[in-house]
Amino acid sequence: MSELRWDPLKLHWVIIATERGRRPRDFQVEREHNGMTACPFCYGNEDKTPPEIFAIRPSGMPNAANWRVRVIPNKYPALRVEGQAGSRGYGLYDVMNGIGAHEVIIETPDHNRSMADLAVNEICDVLRAYRARYLDLRKDFRLRYMVIFKNHGLRAGATLHHSHSQLIAVPLLPPVAATELKVARTYFGTKERCIFCDIIDFELREGQRVVREFPNYLTMTPFASSSPFELRLFPKQHSHDFALMNDAQLSELAMALKDMLLRVKSVLLDAPYNFILHTAPPPHHRPGKPGHWGSLEYDYHWHIELVPRLTQTAGFEWGTGFYINPTSPEDAAQFLREAEV
Amino acid sequence: MSELRWDPLKLHWVIIATERGRRPRDFQVEREHNGMTACPFCYGNEDKTPPEIFAIRPSGMPNAANWRVRVIPNKYPALRVEGQAGSRGYGLYDVMNGIGAHEVIIETPDHNRSMADLAVNEICDVLRAYRARYLDLRKDFRLRYMVIFKNHGLRAGATLHHSHSQLIAVPLLPPVAATELKVARTYFGTKERCIFCDIIDFELREGQRVVREFPNYLTMTPFASSSPFELRLFPKQHSHDFALMNDAQLSELAMALKDMLLRVKSVLLDAPYNFILHTAPPPHHRPGKPGHWGSLEYDYHWHIELVPRLTQTAGFEWGTGFYINPTSPEDAAQFLREAEV
Repeated sequence: MSELRWDPLKLHWVIIATERGRRPRDFQVEREHNGMTACPFCYGNEDKTPPEIFAIRPSGMPNAANWRVRVIPNKYPALRVEGQAGSRGYGLYDVMNGIGAHEVIIETPDHNRSMADLAVNEICDVLRAYRARYLDLRKDFRLRYMVIFKNHGLRAGATLHHSHSQLIAVPLLPPVAATELKVARTYFGTKERCIFCDIIDFELREGQRVVREFPNYLTMTPFASSSPFELRLFPKQHSHDFALMNDAQLSELAMALKDMLLRVKSVLLDAPYNFILHTAPPPHHRPGKPGHWGSLEYDYHWHIELVPRLTQTAGFEWGTGFYINPTSPEDAAQFLREAEV
Repeated sequence: MSELRWDPLKLHWVIIATERGRRPRDFQVEREHNGMTACPFCYGNEDKTPPEIFAIRPSGMPNAANWRVRVIPNKYPALRVEGQAGSRGYGLYDVMNGIGAHEVIIETPDHNRSMADLAVNEICDVLRAYRARYLDLRKDFRLRYMVIFKNHGLRAGATLHHSHSQLIAVPLLPPVAATELKVARTYFGTKERCIFCDIIDFELREGQRVVREFPNYLTMTPFASSSPFELRLFPKQHSHDFALMNDAQLSELAMALKDMLLRVKSVLLDAPYNFILHTAPPPHHRPGKPGHWGSLEYDYHWHIELVPRLTQTAGFEWGTGFYINPTSPEDAAQFLREAEV
């Protein structure tokens, strides 16, 4: 079983994923698989993956070769569902059992189309699969947070070429989510407004970091982008929980997401990227009294963050926690805004 | 001038390095320069760099081609010395002038020897250059912290092949240093012992994460290593400030550092890596009353952290702040301990 270990100097958790147990030489052969025949995510190879958890298909049996989107457990999971989340001490350190979930969302049966190439209704199917998995995993009270993310390209951490996203559910509130929730709560505490709503409002008035506006969504470059051409995609109306979006809302989101991915592909010549869906923790792990003034429904705002992997983080970033970004967010927004998509 | 921008959602500073002003196409051509003739760090090309700040050479004029170690300003600095550290507001955001310093320490005139290949006395010269630069930059009260680091290999962020380290001085205490200082202070507050000393003591008794012990230094893999084969190198005796090390101490450190680099080179087949020197902030920016019980001299402990770049951080790490490490620190220590060096 994987172990979560606490670093008492850096104050963060690390997952020691012993299932992978990689030795020195294993790191030398790391490269992207692109062989059509061997791809476990293609039609006809459904038996090469663990049995599916969820799928969108016209009709028929699970694991049959007629799906549009397919969700499977990761074959080498960072965290497993079995076991209890018990924690224990060891000298000055703390250790926790690595329970959780690690799933793969195969976005298309087509081996060679990236997410940007999918039709809007196909991307909408992927978003519906995200929503379904969020709603299902919330029933497991041991899971404190779920994060859905996508690694596109080898340099962004994708070891399989066939387009897919991942979901990892963890038994602790992760630091990035904890900071966002705390920030949102503090801001609401003094202003009784959502900080995300205020940022959206400010950026729409300023305009120079806006990339594209849809009736209900906004794509923009963050004022303090930590790397070049970073993007955030917000619903313009306040909404704390991605899983509560209805089909019409997901359909427009699919349009905005495709637009964002196409701009990145066009301006940055299909650069590798990561995107992350930031949303509220499951209802029973939310701070505040649900439905009451001052609860998380009022102060948090879900969004998608996209980070193209154009530069290497290096010793300075690792050693300080500061980031150096050689392209101003205003310039980046202009390039992305003017892209032909 | 570069700008420091505060991210109100992630609570971190970003340096928008406008001097670099990189456009989309600039990122496509990023690769390591290895052409002998063009290398600005080789003998005879001293006029291709800004004039030197510091050098170790037997005798003769500054910028002559007989140095052993040479320190120059970075030609494309992330931060510049000129100006004041004034901060201002902008909407919900905060901005600060990007003052600081960005220097390059050329470790050897030899284009093709990496730091691991240098003789112990040559590495000792590099460490003496580090110490000299720390001591000099401390005179500038605007600078709150200096970090010295090394990027080895393209994947670790080194764009020039010729072996070098860098120093960046910043006008704010960086989050990583702030966390370490806070942790050390809190621990001392309850136990009246240094947390680093306690870790060293515990690890020496446990043994399974020890890589190599010298009379006054210890190389080990951290219990909660966030990536495979991570290493930390500590002085065994309590010492808060690298800049106070004498020549004899630096000489033994050079031996321990060479040993660590050779082990990484041998076990990981010359993998790219970053190392970072963590030490106390300049005296006038330290918390606590100098020389008094409870001040930083008692609770902080300088050290070197080395991170081989074997895996890609991806969407999960970026989106959560958790790290996944597929090699246990105990296994890593065993491989490194048994390496022939």
